[in-house]
Amino acid sequence: MKSVNVAIIGSGVVGSAYINQLKNLTSSIGFKVIYLARSSKEALFSKDYSPVDLSTYKSAASQPVLSLSDLNEFLKNSGKPTILVDNTSNETIANFYPNFIKSGISIATPNKKAFSSDISVWNEIFESSKTGGLVGHEATVGAGLPIIEPLNDLVLTGDKIDKIEGIFSGTLSYIFNEFSTTDGSNNTKFSDVVKVAKDLGYTEPDPRDDLNGLDVARKVTILARISGLNVESPTSFPVESLIPKALESVESADEFMEKLPNFDDEIQKIKDEAFAENKVLRFVGSVDLKTNKASVGIAKYGFDHPFASLKGSDNVVSIKSERYPNPLVIQGAGAGAEVTAHGVLADTIKIAQRIAI
Amino acid sequence: MKSVNVAIIGSGVVGSAYINQLKNLTSSIGFKVIYLARSSKEALFSKDYSPVDLSTYKSAASQPVLSLSDLNEFLKNSGKPTILVDNTSNETIANFYPNFIKSGISIATPNKKAFSSDISVWNEIFESSKTGGLVGHEATVGAGLPIIEPLNDLVLTGDKIDKIEGIFSGTLSYIFNEFSTTDGSNNTKFSDVVKVAKDLGYTEPDPRDDLNGLDVARKVTILARISGLNVESPTSFPVESLIPKALESVESADEFMEKLPNFDDEIQKIKDEAFAENKVLRFVGSVDLKTNKASVGIAKYGFDHPFASLKGSDNVVSIKSERYPNPLVIQGAGAGAEVTAHGVLADTIKIAQRIAI
Ligand SMILES: NC(=O)c1ccc[n+]([C@@H]2O[C@H](COP(=O)([O-])OP(=O)(O)OC[C@H]3O[C@@H](n4cnc5c(N)ncnc54)[C@H](OP(=O)(O)O)[C@@H]3O)[C@@H](O)[C@H]2O)c1
Ligand SMILES: NC(=O)c1ccc[n+]([C@@H]2O[C@H](COP(=O)([O-])OP(=O)(O)OC[C@H]3O[C@@H](n4cnc5c(N)ncnc54)[C@H](OP(=O)(O)O)[C@@H]3O)[C@@H](O)[C@H]2O)c1
Repeated sequence: MKSVNVAIIGSGVVGSAYINQLKNLTSSIGFKVIYLARSSKEALFSKDYSPVDLSTYKSAASQPVLSLSDLNEFLKNSGKPTILVDNTSNETIANFYPNFIKSGISIATPNKKAFSSDISVWNEIFESSKTGGLVGHEATVGAGLPIIEPLNDLVLTGDKIDKIEGIFSGTLSYIFNEFSTTDGSNNTKFSDVVKVAKDLGYTEPDPRDDLNGLDVARKVTILARISGLNVESPTSFPVESLIPKALESVESADEFMEKLPNFDDEIQKIKDEAFAENKVLRFVGSVDLKTNKASVGIAKYGFDHPFASLKGSDNVVSIKSERYPNPLVIQGAGAGAEVTAHGVLADTIKIAQRIAI
Repeated sequence: MKSVNVAIIGSGVVGSAYINQLKNLTSSIGFKVIYLARSSKEALFSKDYSPVDLSTYKSAASQPVLSLSDLNEFLKNSGKPTILVDNTSNETIANFYPNFIKSGISIATPNKKAFSSDISVWNEIFESSKTGGLVGHEATVGAGLPIIEPLNDLVLTGDKIDKIEGIFSGTLSYIFNEFSTTDGSNNTKFSDVVKVAKDLGYTEPDPRDDLNGLDVARKVTILARISGLNVESPTSFPVESLIPKALESVESADEFMEKLPNFDDEIQKIKDEAFAENKVLRFVGSVDLKTNKASVGIAKYGFDHPFASLKGSDNVVSIKSERYPNPLVIQGAGAGAEVTAHGVLADTIKIAQRIAI
């Protein structure tokens, strides 16, 4: 039986779901976990590369995590093709990917950082991947939804992408699906929807971390680059923030939530104007390959547009290309432990199918 | 540079688009075409395996095609991992896949036959693939839409599929999208829509080959098997035919078209009843893993359901699973030379990434 070695960093929401799915996997390839960083402090591994037991990892005796360069050495010398699974959102780890890749170590990750920061990191990753380790990052956009690979396939087989539009934040999907509906009797206030979303745990602890649009901008950056638009960084194109200027620098999330109702009128007006045109508001990211422009912000869609009938916190992406003038549309849960973990695990398996010995 | 050998059978609608896309491919893997059957009679190849020139294949001097067993020998001895690309709808070739696979030859194909006939063929293909050649058949359902691989990924990583529903025939999508709309003023007759579809070249020469539902049943068979429901054959579950009983055995397509208007009332009644409930009719295939039942036929959908707003001849699939209780929906062109060819080419590339040396 062919096999690979696997190193897992992080056992948070996604990491623990990933570990569980991997533990239950039936596969014709063997996956031997030789390193598991259960947190930013503690890791399970042994010098002789004996496997980590995924049934007891939560309570097993641990050691301090290895530094990234020590980890690189450890994995490089493991004697088997190795996949590093980064289930953190850590930027330092992300910036270290090129070193791992140059050592022949492959990466599977839902961590957007490396792919959506400065274009130089992106270039270094994919340049070194030509001769080094492989890279799978399906779960960096839309969690487990099939977006990155189908888009890559289109580009690789010679299609020309015209336009990508989508709703890429589960939080902002939920907020706008509740706030702006096709139902005229809905008079929910924007600040009330944000409050409910926060209470349900759908937002970051400080909702401004969702409302600033940066997470969406990072996803747009990734899709733009795959489509051939080399955006410099997620701040190099227009990103509309939903945070009222006056509340950008208030100290606490509590104070922000308290003052947000003062700004309801402004967005209500935009919603009412849209409704008068039989349209709803959605917070979308888009990449236009005709004008070579990326952008993030509020847009209006007719009641019969697929984006208007989105439910819950679903994500959706619409890809228009030479081959798909009627767009290719993919829609479904774009966040959550299990779907994100399965996206990372599917990447892990596909990499293993290519490198296992 | 790593490379593979490629053998292509068929240069019809899909085959010629495939050849063109392959010719223009920029890839880090070399694809050397060593056999090209331009039709069921003529092929281009040479005993020393020198490459077929894809710029001149239409007019180059040819030889009679090799028999399947001679082709198997020829490819087996080519000295490189080899991918057989079957761009026909031929059943004899399909039934020969297990032999190719056992010889270590991989298959990429849009030909549904092998995957949707008797379950024994399916089992033999995937059993022999465990130690032999690989198999890619993304384009057998929804053409180039990402359906087979995402579904496989879900199953492989441990998701439980609950229900798959979809519109899998471009022809029947078009016919029902035109016939049954959310617009009350639409009084188009069923037979008129079929006539327009035939005149536009959307149907088979004899529209009964679309209206009998068998093509949809074949696609449902494939999706059911991937999801874990081992349907025996495409005729082992209920398939509603849209051909009026009395017209099943009329001799010619012309006579069929002439008499079809006599049966408009029946389907019109079903449409009107649905419309009274704010619903449209669609011709769908479905697999229910709770009741272990597959079926094909007319179903009704509310005006706000994604299937109701489908456009043109688009396909759509909705996958409900443990991880996607709100279904994962994928929609877009499900037929056409370029999208089908890109589905086959993407499979070819993915196989090559695993086997090229
Ligand atoms: N949750 C989702 O629905 C979702 C969807 C799509 C993508 N993602 C992405 O998935 C990744 C993980 O998200 P999550 O929700 O699982 O986050 P999380 O619950 O905060 O888990 C992060 C884990 O990484 C560990 N970690 C952080 N830095 C580390 C380091 N330097 N070394 C070792 N371990 C470290 C954390 O340990 P400490 O507790 O010690 O810091 C924690 O166990 C993120 O990149 C996120 O953007 C998540
Ligand atoms: N067209 C679409 O939109 C679409 C979409 C999804 C899937 N597909 C599938 O793609 C496949 C090809 O469809 P198509 O539309 O390209 O069909 P097509 O235009 O009829 O082309 C079929 C080609 O295969 C050749 N062929 C048939 N039997 C052969 C044999 N035994 N040896 C060598 N060549 C042989 C034919 O040559 P002759 O002329 O000599 O018979 C012809 O060149 C089918 O399986 C179809 O179901 C098509």
